[in-house]
Amino acid sequence: MRSPYGRAMTDVKRHKILLDEDEMPTRWYNVVPDLPAPPPPVLHPGTLEPVGPDDLAPLFPMALIGQEVTSDSYVEIPGDVLDIYRLWRPSPLYRAHRLERALKTPARIYYKYEGVSPAGSHKPNTAVPQAFYNAEAGIRRLTTETGAGQWGTALAFACTQYGLECEVWQVRASYDMKPYRRMMIETFGATIHPSPSELTNAGRAILAATPDSTGSLGIAISEAVEVAAQNADTNYALGSVLNHVLMHQTIIGEEALLQLAKVGETPDLIVGCTGGGSNFGGLAFPFLREKLAGRMSPSILAVEPAACPSLTKGSYAYDFGDTAGMTPLMKMHTLGHDFIPDPIHAGGLRYHGMSPLISHIYELGLLSAVSKPQSDCFAAGVQFARTEGIVPAPEPTHALAAAIDEARRCAETGEEKVILTALCGHGHLDLPAYDAYLSGRMTDSEWADHDADAMARALAALPAVPA
Amino acid sequence: MRSPYGRAMTDVKRHKILLDEDEMPTRWYNVVPDLPAPPPPVLHPGTLEPVGPDDLAPLFPMALIGQEVTSDSYVEIPGDVLDIYRLWRPSPLYRAHRLERALKTPARIYYKYEGVSPAGSHKPNTAVPQAFYNAEAGIRRLTTETGAGQWGTALAFACTQYGLECEVWQVRASYDMKPYRRMMIETFGATIHPSPSELTNAGRAILAATPDSTGSLGIAISEAVEVAAQNADTNYALGSVLNHVLMHQTIIGEEALLQLAKVGETPDLIVGCTGGGSNFGGLAFPFLREKLAGRMSPSILAVEPAACPSLTKGSYAYDFGDTAGMTPLMKMHTLGHDFIPDPIHAGGLRYHGMSPLISHIYELGLLSAVSKPQSDCFAAGVQFARTEGIVPAPEPTHALAAAIDEARRCAETGEEKVILTALCGHGHLDLPAYDAYLSGRMTDSEWADHDADAMARALAALPAVPA
Repeated sequence: MRSPYGRAMTDVKRHKILLDEDEMPTRWYNVVPDLPAPPPPVLHPGTLEPVGPDDLAPLFPMALIGQEVTSDSYVEIPGDVLDIYRLWRPSPLYRAHRLERALKTPARIYYKYEGVSPAGSHKPNTAVPQAFYNAEAGIRRLTTETGAGQWGTALAFACTQYGLECEVWQVRASYDMKPYRRMMIETFGATIHPSPSELTNAGRAILAATPDSTGSLGIAISEAVEVAAQNADTNYALGSVLNHVLMHQTIIGEEALLQLAKVGETPDLIVGCTGGGSNFGGLAFPFLREKLAGRMSPSILAVEPAACPSLTKGSYAYDFGDTAGMTPLMKMHTLGHDFIPDPIHAGGLRYHGMSPLISHIYELGLLSAVSKPQSDCFAAGVQFARTEGIVPAPEPTHALAAAIDEARRCAETGEEKVILTALCGHGHLDLPAYDAYLSGRMTDSEWADHDADAMARALAALPAVPA
Repeated sequence: MRSPYGRAMTDVKRHKILLDEDEMPTRWYNVVPDLPAPPPPVLHPGTLEPVGPDDLAPLFPMALIGQEVTSDSYVEIPGDVLDIYRLWRPSPLYRAHRLERALKTPARIYYKYEGVSPAGSHKPNTAVPQAFYNAEAGIRRLTTETGAGQWGTALAFACTQYGLECEVWQVRASYDMKPYRRMMIETFGATIHPSPSELTNAGRAILAATPDSTGSLGIAISEAVEVAAQNADTNYALGSVLNHVLMHQTIIGEEALLQLAKVGETPDLIVGCTGGGSNFGGLAFPFLREKLAGRMSPSILAVEPAACPSLTKGSYAYDFGDTAGMTPLMKMHTLGHDFIPDPIHAGGLRYHGMSPLISHIYELGLLSAVSKPQSDCFAAGVQFARTEGIVPAPEPTHALAAAIDEARRCAETGEEKVILTALCGHGHLDLPAYDAYLSGRMTDSEWADHDADAMARALAALPAVPA
């Protein structure tokens, strides 16, 4: 076929690699059975024994508890979930031709874009099945916490699809300072409260002590969990960290595998940002399966913020998942459960720990990690926006910065590496961060010696887990 | 193929109808030669004679002036423009299964979604070729005005692709009150000034008289045009109203024709929102061609805000395109060039006139029009967001409200009508409007008797055009 300009269409650069709806994967992938060693168990904080299903039953439906501990390699995606996924899935894979040209690199950069979802990120990939299994179990309402608001938006959308009520506690600082996410959550029909609130014992206790508290993710979790635990018709939903959450996200990587195969590409480097780990695991795990099976050999790189470097600077130790110390103990890379990261713009990466599963895989030597200061990341984000036309969320600018580093290195060496990165969300509601960067008002912060001392003290104060 | 749940995949509802990049149309459609009568000429305000190319040359490159008056039915899209279009085009066509189900309607609702573009709207469809033809003509810089900021964002993105400088005058009220769009414009590399500014004679004159002026689109146009007219290396770009702008947008309708053909559908109703008319014309004109050729017979419906009802309440008369009276005289449906619509949230629809081409086609009886108060539109927008997962911009909620009206009517009559609507942008940067609606703070306004009197006086004061 020839274009009107006499140029063969086969010469024209293809930007998007699309899958049809009936090419969408119909099962999630569980990486655990394929690993050379099983991950350490999650422990009850009182008994220090592995937690069982009954310990989790007040908060989660049995279907999700089963997925959390399953030894099956695949879990079929329910038809009702597939139907909602099809509103935005399969998501596009892009070849970053215009970014490559700007970098004068022989590397070929691909990005898997999750910003097409209702929430504008990868979060609905797990919010929808979580709402489905809860609705199926007869639950009437889900509670959750949210920081910047991505997860709250996703769960609000998902609950509306199944007629569930959704109640979100949002860290007050974000509730007040970043109202657009609150408005989107309400547009999707959820109820949202600034946290700490007067609605829970946990919130009232904080407000009694600190009337002008701006809140924290830990406090918001406490409020959401309290309401779920006290009401039989109410469950709690978590947007990252846990095994079943990462498994739901593997549809990202399964699609990307099919899409790269369509253009005959095999990745040399897979790079994603890590906060709780769900976007990263979602992209990387299916490729890790292929690597462990000897069918490809990509390097897998996690990029975390310099202000919150759990993999590169944290301890691999049993710690609490929340600030208040209410959750089971999980072995993970942690900066200490009372670590409060500096208020960088990538709110989705401000978590003291790393998913236990990602942490375990890191310890097995199957992935590497680097950290990046946020101004380097926003420089990459601006370059990406101007070349590819998508303003990225602050979180994936971390992965973009590392991908650009590698592409620049290839420009020097002449290597034609294939780089695959996860563009896990758009930055439409994060534009004030770009404004801060462009106007020179952005500051960087690093994990410091005093942070390391505090981490050591926090971990030393935890119950001693028998070897 | 069977799904894991034993349900044949052919029974599964398909949401998206996609085109591959090599299926993208390679030419724009010019509806003028197919109309039963030619549109009235544009007149020079001094001589009252039809304007010629030389009158427009200080502001536009000859390629665009040629497209403005061409009698060709098709104009080939340059390869460089096609390449940039491919960053987001072909845009998806969706079947609104979940909205249909909520409405219990037998109607089949399809929406063509332009929110996937870099600016989040249909505007880049014309911004990119305008930047291309200006760059090709050796122009170094483009100026423009923007109200809420959609057009400024699109032109900023387009200019970056061709290494053009972009200078945007934004109405001060929007600049101050809706900073996210300004930030996006700057992220794409443009310079933006609040208007009135100290940078132009027009701006200084306004500020001298009214130091705290919050600006208007008319003033911003005056500033952008002044800078373009005074600098040989600088041109001006307009985002709607003109023939060439509407022609660039016809790629929307050409794609939708191909997409509906893929699923064997023929529309019974095509409905779009109208401000300056470019989104509406872009969707409707290719279908109008099919209708005029007897190949299909859709009704074509324009929906405008009750606060700014140029088609339904305006006069069909020669009037200025801008508030200050600097442009040529165009015969169009107008509320009077000094009409300032109430500050409804659909900023893109707050224009006193209607594209002369749309106006002419309306006079020919080839389309009909209705107006809607904004709270009805936001009710439709919220229902759409909760069912389809996309928060629409305020502008297309007007079309959605009318589409929902028709689908409800079909629910009563049992008609299986095929409704096609243009979802011309997302509402991520318009969430405060949803907040106003959901919290009961939204007010409606209607065109009133005193507005009609003012319109009559404004039009009576214009130069009398010979019959």
